[in-house]
Amino acid sequence: MDQVVELGMDTFGDVTEDGHGVPVSHAQAIRDVIAEGILADEVGVDFFGVGEHHRPDFSVSSPETVLAAIASRTRHIHLGSAVTVLSSDDPVRVYQRFATLDAASAGRAEVILGRGSFTESFPLFGFDLERYDELFEEKLNLFVELMKEGEVNWSGATRAPLDGQRVFPTTEAGSLKVWVGVGGSPESVVRAASYSLPLMLAIIGADPARFAPYIELYRHALAEFGHQAQPIGIHSPGYIAETDEQAREELWPYFKEGRTASALSVDGRR
Amino acid sequence: MDQVVELGMDTFGDVTEDGHGVPVSHAQAIRDVIAEGILADEVGVDFFGVGEHHRPDFSVSSPETVLAAIASRTRHIHLGSAVTVLSSDDPVRVYQRFATLDAASAGRAEVILGRGSFTESFPLFGFDLERYDELFEEKLNLFVELMKEGEVNWSGATRAPLDGQRVFPTTEAGSLKVWVGVGGSPESVVRAASYSLPLMLAIIGADPARFAPYIELYRHALAEFGHQAQPIGIHSPGYIAETDEQAREELWPYFKEGRTASALSVDGRR
Repeated sequence: MDQVVELGMDTFGDVTEDGHGVPVSHAQAIRDVIAEGILADEVGVDFFGVGEHHRPDFSVSSPETVLAAIASRTRHIHLGSAVTVLSSDDPVRVYQRFATLDAASAGRAEVILGRGSFTESFPLFGFDLERYDELFEEKLNLFVELMKEGEVNWSGATRAPLDGQRVFPTTEAGSLKVWVGVGGSPESVVRAASYSLPLMLAIIGADPARFAPYIELYRHALAEFGHQAQPIGIHSPGYIAETDEQAREELWPYFKEGRTASALSVDGRR
Repeated sequence: MDQVVELGMDTFGDVTEDGHGVPVSHAQAIRDVIAEGILADEVGVDFFGVGEHHRPDFSVSSPETVLAAIASRTRHIHLGSAVTVLSSDDPVRVYQRFATLDAASAGRAEVILGRGSFTESFPLFGFDLERYDELFEEKLNLFVELMKEGEVNWSGATRAPLDGQRVFPTTEAGSLKVWVGVGGSPESVVRAASYSLPLMLAIIGADPARFAPYIELYRHALAEFGHQAQPIGIHSPGYIAETDEQAREELWPYFKEGRTASALSVDGRR
């Protein structure tokens, strides 16, 4: 059983402080993310992910626009969202933007579709938080249809129907690479398995060992649905310095306020 | 009265043919557009515009994703949509994507908001073509509110209301640079003037001299509304070769089928 572990990094484009404790502009924070993505490619990181938020403390609300700027300056690194809040976006637009990123990066785009851990996007885009589950379920269902890149026939309660329309641009591989981001609900794990989509597990605070049962559930569910094994990834906040002690000292002032300058995710696939 | 004329180019990311008459992939057409944008910057073109379409013969449905890939490889050229079909998009998302492009390009983003000359996007995104005018009018109204980059209070019939929300990222200049694309309706010209927004006139087929009255109307309306003079641009299909004869011969086989490999736009501002 071959296992390949890939190392990725992700960020929300946090608004950092300059040398005098003054917050940088959103624009500067975005340019810093682009520079980090380019550097990550140069030093051999496998994946760079950018989150989607709609808050003043995070500069990135449109991950794929940031990723496209990184795409044309990099050669190897895979570029993805971490995560795309599918529930409050339109699956057709998301597919179009990532297919365009896939073109710009010559096949390195990876979408991670999730429900998001913040809720600002729902009122901003006119979606009812009470339909949180229905919105994600229906939109993921449509997204899986879009992945076939043919004529789409779909109808639901959360979006206008598609009646034989096609969506452009199409990708060179015939489909986008898509993950489902899961926070720890067994139903979400089983749903990802039902579509045979790779699983990205967000481990935000707890002991990673506590999440092992979700991995077992995912593998079991894939087998039950008759699907092949799929890649599994985990995301976890992290901070790297020369020594453990230095890392702790540098990170602590931010961590205690609930802020992390960047996050680290690892994904392993067999 | 100082006048500065800037020269721009725009493209819809037309699916071209390779040396054997075989259409290139959407992905290749997108990469070609990115290469053209980078070359345009190198040779000193002032503006590069990318259109939005949802058809198999044009590769670009997400102009700002393409433009972001160009942004990080260029220094001077201004980057815009030509046009963004605002009627079938969400103004908040459009603002976010272009503010992100503006960050990536250090202030070179320019949105051209229009109604589009094709109609595919309406059923694709669930908008009623019978509300063509209302959709553009309301969404332009919201976009002008978003340009203030403060708390937005807005309500209308075509989109969920905003109740004191802010939209991120914000731009370094305090607002995006925005044009209104107009195809030749006097009402559209007056509407652009009422918001004091620069005018981009699309001259697709007729003698440019026939459009002079729209320019006069625009200047007159600006004055009537008490606004200062604003930049005026024109877009027109074009093709450049070493000689006029060569240009005619090279372009004709495509032009007679209604296809143009690229288009040229010029904008002049005083």
